[in-house]
Amino acid sequence: MNAADLGLPVAVPSTALFTDQYELTMLQAALRGGTADRRSVFEVFTRRLPEGRRYGVVAGTGRVLDAVENFRFDEPQLAFLRERGIVDEATLAWLAEYRFRGDVWGYPEGEVYFPGSPILRVEGSFAECVLLETVILSILNHDSAIAAAASRMSAAAGGRGLIEMGARRTHELAAVAAARAAYVGGFDSTSDLAAGFRYGIPTVGTSAHAFILLHDTERDAFRVQVDALGRGTTLLVDTYDVTEAVRTAVEVAGPELGAVRIDSGDLLLVAHRVRQQLDELGARDTRIVVTSDLDEYAIASLAAAPVDAYGVGTQLVTGSGHPTASMVYKLVARADSADPAAPLRPVAKRSLGGKASVGGRKWAARRLDAHGVAEAEVVGTGEVPAELAGRQLLTRLVEAGKVVAREPLEAARERHIAARAGLPLSAVQLSRGEAVLPTEYVTP
Amino acid sequence: MNAADLGLPVAVPSTALFTDQYELTMLQAALRGGTADRRSVFEVFTRRLPEGRRYGVVAGTGRVLDAVENFRFDEPQLAFLRERGIVDEATLAWLAEYRFRGDVWGYPEGEVYFPGSPILRVEGSFAECVLLETVILSILNHDSAIAAAASRMSAAAGGRGLIEMGARRTHELAAVAAARAAYVGGFDSTSDLAAGFRYGIPTVGTSAHAFILLHDTERDAFRVQVDALGRGTTLLVDTYDVTEAVRTAVEVAGPELGAVRIDSGDLLLVAHRVRQQLDELGARDTRIVVTSDLDEYAIASLAAAPVDAYGVGTQLVTGSGHPTASMVYKLVARADSADPAAPLRPVAKRSLGGKASVGGRKWAARRLDAHGVAEAEVVGTGEVPAELAGRQLLTRLVEAGKVVAREPLEAARERHIAARAGLPLSAVQLSRGEAVLPTEYVTP
Repeated sequence: MNAADLGLPVAVPSTALFTDQYELTMLQAALRGGTADRRSVFEVFTRRLPEGRRYGVVAGTGRVLDAVENFRFDEPQLAFLRERGIVDEATLAWLAEYRFRGDVWGYPEGEVYFPGSPILRVEGSFAECVLLETVILSILNHDSAIAAAASRMSAAAGGRGLIEMGARRTHELAAVAAARAAYVGGFDSTSDLAAGFRYGIPTVGTSAHAFILLHDTERDAFRVQVDALGRGTTLLVDTYDVTEAVRTAVEVAGPELGAVRIDSGDLLLVAHRVRQQLDELGARDTRIVVTSDLDEYAIASLAAAPVDAYGVGTQLVTGSGHPTASMVYKLVARADSADPAAPLRPVAKRSLGGKASVGGRKWAARRLDAHGVAEAEVVGTGEVPAELAGRQLLTRLVEAGKVVAREPLEAARERHIAARAGLPLSAVQLSRGEAVLPTEYVTP
Repeated sequence: MNAADLGLPVAVPSTALFTDQYELTMLQAALRGGTADRRSVFEVFTRRLPEGRRYGVVAGTGRVLDAVENFRFDEPQLAFLRERGIVDEATLAWLAEYRFRGDVWGYPEGEVYFPGSPILRVEGSFAECVLLETVILSILNHDSAIAAAASRMSAAAGGRGLIEMGARRTHELAAVAAARAAYVGGFDSTSDLAAGFRYGIPTVGTSAHAFILLHDTERDAFRVQVDALGRGTTLLVDTYDVTEAVRTAVEVAGPELGAVRIDSGDLLLVAHRVRQQLDELGARDTRIVVTSDLDEYAIASLAAAPVDAYGVGTQLVTGSGHPTASMVYKLVARADSADPAAPLRPVAKRSLGGKASVGGRKWAARRLDAHGVAEAEVVGTGEVPAELAGRQLLTRLVEAGKVVAREPLEAARERHIAARAGLPLSAVQLSRGEAVLPTEYVTP
């Protein structure tokens, strides 16, 4: 399947204009000033987690790799920049030849992160690295926000099925990335066909209230649906009267009915009643799916209810109150020239209004306690202490411009489950609290 | 310029998979059951505005028209559906021929809306209309949420410049749509080059802290930037010490310096100091741009500060606390057959858990008081009262499958300014309150 058929920025001519104009004007100035080729290190990190959250989830790394690979200025992009007078001819000529040829290291996708974690490190000339700021941040900020919400919901669901159903609540292409991020964060399936097409995520879905209303009676609608989709289908039972609908559903489909869906009302109460009714009707294996403005708290509150799967929309794709991560992309070190032997000097904006950052090219490792549970996120410059060498978090993603770390989405999903399981138990408490690991800085 | 170069869902093979699976399974069932061609009317509306908001802003209509036009199932989409076994061969054959041939009416883009406003009305066979649910809602829910935040910010800015700078805080393609919606809502420009490329929105941007840090001194950085971009450029003055930076900036660029940008600290205080310093240095025409976690409240709080333009990022592209509108797409009326003469009967889900809706094909009009100020959103079925006939809000967008209402983005932007100006003055209060117009229902 060709991703370009979806208009996704994969195998499309270019991702180069997902860029803030200042990256190109800085490039022009640096080219003119003779500083564009200074060897530079940029890092992506966040100064804080969203209020009350215990951990973050890295998501979007695979999409970043696609974006970097497709970041090039072809004739349409160059013509636009020329026509608008955004940069001069010398810069346009440089852009026409642009391919990222540097290195990228990063936390692998699905890994957890904390304030100060160097989630991604981009190394190369100032010119080649500065251009990637916006597209990298767009992807990581969006996808990580969704994955973090998904992870909390999946912890709350305690192994019950989780269906991503939020496409209609977010931009149509953000929805595809959201379904992907939700899968990384622990969801099982999505209603979004484009996400199935592009990323191979399992897709699900049966019918809506409109389908019931199209027919003269609920019974007619159920019969038509069961005839077409089989007894294993999910019937929507809350268009009129739930008790009546459940009775009709089992009459039409028999006790082999796959599932019923409840999309409104007091879900806790209704789920109990429906379960009892299904059992009395002999439909003991018929599952109950609930979908109605769920978030991690609503999911947790249904833990004691006889619910088999949750469909989550709005709150998932909007990050459950935190629709973006606050990651930034900062120059942390640079040399005085392009010479690989020239020393890198740490740089950082001076503190003012809480926007200080730590200079220097960083490593990161997660220190474990005697029981093998994570106890600190250790971030440092210089040599990695021997006892942490085996616990390093940054892996090589791009080497001299070549992507070296592609992996199936399943790998990121499994990594997330393992990473979350390695945190202190309080990580999965839904209540507000501090980051579950402290970040410790080690400088030489 | 070819929009496909951006991977945007315009002039791409298809938008057909931006669809929840249940739309296709409902289609299959309805085809099998002989009900697929029943003449149907679907409407988009919201049951409520986000808490505290006074009005909503319709945005994305132009993008909906693109999406409907490109909604078709080509070989890659059909192969995917077949391979996954999502629908049967009869349904695939129907989809292969699919083009929307119905009618769409809607509030024109930039118009304001209220709870119950029939923002979009889609008419045709059940089959052809039901498929469009997700892509229409994705676009309208996202774009309208951003435009509503933009409108509040533009009211708060009181004519000062507004720059959209949020690309890095949202999905890379959502960012392009967000810049477009922000422009509709009253913003003047964007930092996002893709939005300039695709929609012709003015783009701006000069430099970041990384550019200062790349150079050995702030003075070096300013000199390089002014040499490359001219004295009219905007210099970023908060990397180290603002007072020092402003002095250096004027020394390097002279009093013709275009602008300085402040991106951190107490903006009210710093802006006053910088203005005084610039004036003392003779740089009376040098503008002050502020950018640092602004929202409509922060913008309003700077009303008395000597600020010339605001750059807004996170809070704009996340809808300032409300990243999605809560629009739904509901079957409101249907006939018993495809016959254009068959009567349409109103349909609606029965009230349960607050999800009731009003059945019937609706018109809408805005009633004015004696002074020409809007006083009610009137929504009805049946005949339009004579006194409201000239105040109707729905316009024809698609006629028998053909888009008939394309317009330049500028038209939507101007329409929004006029629509907002027609509301009671309390509409632009930032404080929380009820919808500024009541919605009145008129039924025959």
